[in-house]
Amino acid sequence: MKVFVLGASGNTGKSIIDGLNESSTPFDITALTRPSSLDSPKSQALRDAGIKVVAADLSGPQEELVAVLKGADVVISAVTTSALKEQIPLANAAKAAGVKRFVPCSFATVSAPREVMKLSEIKDDIFAHIKALYLPYTSIDVGWWHQLTSPGVPSGRLTDALVFPASEIFGNGEVPSAVTNVKDIGRFVARIIADERTLNKQVFAYGEVLTQNQIWDILERASGEQVERIYVSDEEVNKRVAAGREALAAAPDDMSKIMGLIAPEYHLSWGIRGDNTPEYAKYLGYLDARELYSDLQHTKFSEFIEAALKEKEKK
Amino acid sequence: MKVFVLGASGNTGKSIIDGLNESSTPFDITALTRPSSLDSPKSQALRDAGIKVVAADLSGPQEELVAVLKGADVVISAVTTSALKEQIPLANAAKAAGVKRFVPCSFATVSAPREVMKLSEIKDDIFAHIKALYLPYTSIDVGWWHQLTSPGVPSGRLTDALVFPASEIFGNGEVPSAVTNVKDIGRFVARIIADERTLNKQVFAYGEVLTQNQIWDILERASGEQVERIYVSDEEVNKRVAAGREALAAAPDDMSKIMGLIAPEYHLSWGIRGDNTPEYAKYLGYLDARELYSDLQHTKFSEFIEAALKEKEKK
Repeated sequence: MKVFVLGASGNTGKSIIDGLNESSTPFDITALTRPSSLDSPKSQALRDAGIKVVAADLSGPQEELVAVLKGADVVISAVTTSALKEQIPLANAAKAAGVKRFVPCSFATVSAPREVMKLSEIKDDIFAHIKALYLPYTSIDVGWWHQLTSPGVPSGRLTDALVFPASEIFGNGEVPSAVTNVKDIGRFVARIIADERTLNKQVFAYGEVLTQNQIWDILERASGEQVERIYVSDEEVNKRVAAGREALAAAPDDMSKIMGLIAPEYHLSWGIRGDNTPEYAKYLGYLDARELYSDLQHTKFSEFIEAALKEKEKK
Repeated sequence: MKVFVLGASGNTGKSIIDGLNESSTPFDITALTRPSSLDSPKSQALRDAGIKVVAADLSGPQEELVAVLKGADVVISAVTTSALKEQIPLANAAKAAGVKRFVPCSFATVSAPREVMKLSEIKDDIFAHIKALYLPYTSIDVGWWHQLTSPGVPSGRLTDALVFPASEIFGNGEVPSAVTNVKDIGRFVARIIADERTLNKQVFAYGEVLTQNQIWDILERASGEQVERIYVSDEEVNKRVAAGREALAAAPDDMSKIMGLIAPEYHLSWGIRGDNTPEYAKYLGYLDARELYSDLQHTKFSEFIEAALKEKEKK
């Protein structure tokens, strides 16, 4: 199975490459990169790991992009937020090239498709474009990374393991939310893209469901350290969201304003509303990867913390 | 099962009322009407048929609307196009009242959720609002009505049976599209709303799949009359769509501009793109009512025409 991965050097992309490499299904993997990054150290690192690296210019002529994608069974996009809209020409080219499954960049928490998160709206627009193209797809959400879920500990032992440490608890800290080790994402992806049941479906691939209070408890128990609990009220989260939306409304094309909205809207969605749960995902029509692949090994949050405290985990 | 129907006097609403009335499932039916229409002849006709008629002011205070909806198991909306956005307060009230299933006004052809039809975008916005509310729903599409599918015949024998006679064949007339007798819609609805499998799902309820050339053939065979075939090219349909979109862009809040777009975009969607098929519906995640209720009696297009030619069918 020929798989093309866009964004292979990011946190999600790296996990996907590893998951495909380690899978028992034999995948023929190609990383797509911007022409200007073809000789970058990251591209070289991929080549050193035995991955083909091919240039794809998403803003170039469609015929060239179609020629690059020709023969791909699956195209997986794990691009950065600011590049989400570049998936439109990628999807167009994938349709023209006859790609059998397009995996757009979701790889986030489950949220309402519109009205709650600007980021979800951008993704929903791309999703709608894919549907208008009648392009075979699978959309995968993964919950909130362990590497973003945990705060640091006073001793600093977790610093290397966290992408960005959590610092606040939203509402009363009792809202359940699905968390996943970013390093497990690829293992889920390898199963999902080789599975006919997931074609033209959204899939929720997550580790376990925990509240923020449970997360702080697990961390304190494992570390023996006390971790400050700063509670941020529903009202304060809503105020931050309102301020961010006002700033964006005043400058609708300013990407920095969109970026400024992302954190408060995530907190509203998973921390206050409780969108990021298997129940809401099912309501929205997702398949549950935990049910599809009950045998799949994944890291529990407590295991992640224990390993990280031993400084075995690197960022 | 307590069912509230909004828009009970329209073509779709009337079919739904009849379908619920004739069902073997005992439904307790209430028609919701604007306060100003409570004593209209149409409301009186509903009352004469044994249907409770209750006033609901969609633009009034939410508490009042919640009080009206309290106790409803199912709320079905079959409103006119210009009133689609009034479903937002209706959905909010349904959520607050604990309604177990909300059926928004789809009742149309299957189409891409965005990018192809402005009408679909308006419906998709309401659908997204329902999802953001976490309101239990079922969305039902029904294809293109027999009563809009058939052109008239020179003798005029079909005039009474058609809501609006077709006059053009789009593209080469070979695009398959699902057609349904508007009078069968209620029969499907009665089954769908009593079925747990359809909760939080889109359902495609249709009679059969035919091309426009087949429709003209059936009509000519049944009537013995020759019916003019006016073919409208893909280019011409796209030109009409572009003109309508341009007019709407110049006056985005003008409902008449939206109404002017509806016909050409429908022709593009079902007549050229071929969106209105069971295959595309499945791709979009719909359940197929023909598969769920294979025993359900529905009218074939040829039967509709034969009955209409005998002038048995009334508008």
